[in-house]
Amino acid sequence: MLGPQEKNCPITHYRKSQNIVQDKRIWVTYKEGVYDITDFVIEHPGGDQILLAAGSSVEPFWMLYAVHNNPHVLQQLEALRIGNLSKQDSQHSLENMSDPYSSDPPRHAVLKPASVKPFNAETPPFLLVEQFITPNELFYVRNHLPVPQIDPETYELEVEVEGSNKTVLLTLDDLKKFPKHTITATIMCAGNRRSEMTKEKPVKGLNWGPAAVGNATWAGVRLRDVLKKSGINEDDKKWKHVQFEGVDFDPTGKTYGASIPFWKAIDKRGDVILAYEMNGSPIPRDHGFPIRVIVPGVVGARNVKWLGKITVSENESDSHWQQNDYKGFSPSTNWDTVDFSKSPAIQELPVISAICTPSANEVVKVQDGHILVKDLGYAWSGGGQKIVRVDVTVDGGNTWHIADLDCQDAAEPPQHWSWTLWSARIPIRSGIRNVEIWAKAVDSCYNTQPETFRNIWNLRGVLNNAYHRVPIKTQ
Amino acid sequence: MLGPQEKNCPITHYRKSQNIVQDKRIWVTYKEGVYDITDFVIEHPGGDQILLAAGSSVEPFWMLYAVHNNPHVLQQLEALRIGNLSKQDSQHSLENMSDPYSSDPPRHAVLKPASVKPFNAETPPFLLVEQFITPNELFYVRNHLPVPQIDPETYELEVEVEGSNKTVLLTLDDLKKFPKHTITATIMCAGNRRSEMTKEKPVKGLNWGPAAVGNATWAGVRLRDVLKKSGINEDDKKWKHVQFEGVDFDPTGKTYGASIPFWKAIDKRGDVILAYEMNGSPIPRDHGFPIRVIVPGVVGARNVKWLGKITVSENESDSHWQQNDYKGFSPSTNWDTVDFSKSPAIQELPVISAICTPSANEVVKVQDGHILVKDLGYAWSGGGQKIVRVDVTVDGGNTWHIADLDCQDAAEPPQHWSWTLWSARIPIRSGIRNVEIWAKAVDSCYNTQPETFRNIWNLRGVLNNAYHRVPIKTQ
Repeated sequence: MLGPQEKNCPITHYRKSQNIVQDKRIWVTYKEGVYDITDFVIEHPGGDQILLAAGSSVEPFWMLYAVHNNPHVLQQLEALRIGNLSKQDSQHSLENMSDPYSSDPPRHAVLKPASVKPFNAETPPFLLVEQFITPNELFYVRNHLPVPQIDPETYELEVEVEGSNKTVLLTLDDLKKFPKHTITATIMCAGNRRSEMTKEKPVKGLNWGPAAVGNATWAGVRLRDVLKKSGINEDDKKWKHVQFEGVDFDPTGKTYGASIPFWKAIDKRGDVILAYEMNGSPIPRDHGFPIRVIVPGVVGARNVKWLGKITVSENESDSHWQQNDYKGFSPSTNWDTVDFSKSPAIQELPVISAICTPSANEVVKVQDGHILVKDLGYAWSGGGQKIVRVDVTVDGGNTWHIADLDCQDAAEPPQHWSWTLWSARIPIRSGIRNVEIWAKAVDSCYNTQPETFRNIWNLRGVLNNAYHRVPIKTQ
Repeated sequence: MLGPQEKNCPITHYRKSQNIVQDKRIWVTYKEGVYDITDFVIEHPGGDQILLAAGSSVEPFWMLYAVHNNPHVLQQLEALRIGNLSKQDSQHSLENMSDPYSSDPPRHAVLKPASVKPFNAETPPFLLVEQFITPNELFYVRNHLPVPQIDPETYELEVEVEGSNKTVLLTLDDLKKFPKHTITATIMCAGNRRSEMTKEKPVKGLNWGPAAVGNATWAGVRLRDVLKKSGINEDDKKWKHVQFEGVDFDPTGKTYGASIPFWKAIDKRGDVILAYEMNGSPIPRDHGFPIRVIVPGVVGARNVKWLGKITVSENESDSHWQQNDYKGFSPSTNWDTVDFSKSPAIQELPVISAICTPSANEVVKVQDGHILVKDLGYAWSGGGQKIVRVDVTVDGGNTWHIADLDCQDAAEPPQHWSWTLWSARIPIRSGIRNVEIWAKAVDSCYNTQPETFRNIWNLRGVLNNAYHRVPIKTQ
């Protein structure tokens, strides 16, 4: 942890009356204020990312993570003020700084942002389940940083085998010479449906509804083929992980990073591809142009966009997002007791389902004693498992109705990568006006969803796969 | 469905007054009685297995499935009586019939039988979690039929490739010439913990406690090696299943059978072996001597004992146990509505845990405000997933305590085949005398257990992986 002087910060006035051991405290500046954030680091929703700003202004970071621009955050910060910068220094601090998001691509107006800078937005739920393949412009966007501008003519992907001096550079043309491989796969954010968990008890993270998920057809080259061409022996027990780095970077120059287990990267049935097409078009900028690694069955965070580098390694990625984010914890683990090193990084996601229409409190017509809900929801399970059943109840589980699995592709587990769209015709007792629809899915391992958020609550609000419960009114 | 006359049954007196269309009704005999079971078939706990006795005596079958020897069954049968055999015929029917179980092996007295003929028994729970490797004589036994007597000198395993005229015969010596492969793997019965589900609402099946499971070190030859040697190309998309037949057979000569998906059988990481050793000894007779196929991560029912034949096929096994048993259903599916063809055969099992000590209503000492329970339970997940956490609560989920994972092997998913043994030190509020311990496990896909049996109840009482809840008394 750095004190301000080690980063040569222009702090001129601080509250000397506080008994501060300078080189063990952590300061940041914001406009003219100087703040001691030492005791706040542990509570910071973004984890120790905050240390990137140690000894300097938080403003370049707040331009990256615009979630900070709200009164609550400023209030919290103000409580930590220990002094002020000179007028000259505070004016200086943002000179020549332009909005790093100014070159982000245009987006479809229908996407519902959870944050604008970086851009994170989901599909309106009723649109999500209208089609088995989610159109590119409606596909949810989860960006951690500004969208990089990449010239496909000069783009190069670096492939490194750790410990060797071997580095292979591949242009887009080089990549396209490998056999083309096409898969249809669902990608889901670990925080999908977080807005339900946070109602149980607040969690930190983007307030996603049930639509931080989409299903697309991806085409590209098998990672397996590229690795083998790079001299990797698939049976070499030395290799444990394959790391990915995007070319998107934060103000310190740190790129987005993640890794997946080596077996998944090299497995014949793993279907990991370096995708250059999404639904038949070049991958849009928001989704990783020109190359996104698609790791089917695995949490979105490992499907690294704007791929710049692949490293075959004995170790996991040391990135923040692999080590100190995207992990699950016990409901009783809080920010005082959490130890990120004790939980494994999320890879394959558990079984989940969601009701997309009707929405909460919508009025639904009863006909012949039933409500008929078409395109009701989706269900999916990670690890290539297939949905074998979706059960729906409107009486708190006294009776369960088996949903119709309307759209499901023919792939068998463990290579069933797509979601399943389902609908249901549900009997309603006459006279009942308020009902709550619950849904739960069962996958081909016969894993099913936990009943409540209460017992799976975790401080980061990930893995939100409890029964989906939607109250509606009937008429 | 056969009427009695088609099987040449010696029925002489039947109640002619009933308006019976003979060739569409199904009759059986028991001692001197003749019974019309047509309408009972659908309710028969053992499914259409009952049809094996159509037109003949049920007695040879009841000697096989001794669960029938109870007053309740006789009472049900009596209600179906339509006539009597002549004295001569009824004396004749069991002539020369000896007990098919008379040559079953001796068993350890500590095993707790769920049924004696066939022999099905589990380990006392407190003994189960004392050791990471379950000793052979304490390992739960799940037999569907009498234990066959096999001479290892003359034993031959048949390997057939469907549609070819190729059949390979392998002696035990032939098999042992393949490279020896050793794995440590947990095997669990699909009905493990059924006694808890049946309390919710009765289910059909053996009344297993939490100990129809064990963990052993198995050694043998890789099925993959045998298949490749038999001319199977692992990339041939034609093959979908590998079928197994035991040499144990019922009175009609039908052998026990099951199948697994081809990918699992041929996969490098599948670790399916034809085991001839269990914990360093030749496999005991109760566990499949001389060869049992071990399919790690997959339900016990597919780990076929006394293996006689392997068939590489486009189709699943057509055996009763693959098609009409060992499948999961919705809680609202009953014996009137069940359609076994609509559910997939259970293969990889979902995540589960169980508390083995203390037992229900045991008195546990509180020390320093805590109960300390060593060797408390096990947790396991199918499909090679690893247990990453076990949570325990004694206040209905208000606070969860993270259990210590005491014994866990180092294998990584998707090849983590062994269970995890865990213990916990749990704070108890002073003055509280009656508490209920709940346990739930989380696996490496972050799948977790469902909370209650109510919402996973199924008519066969399989997949009993709801939270384990054990009431205890403290002092």
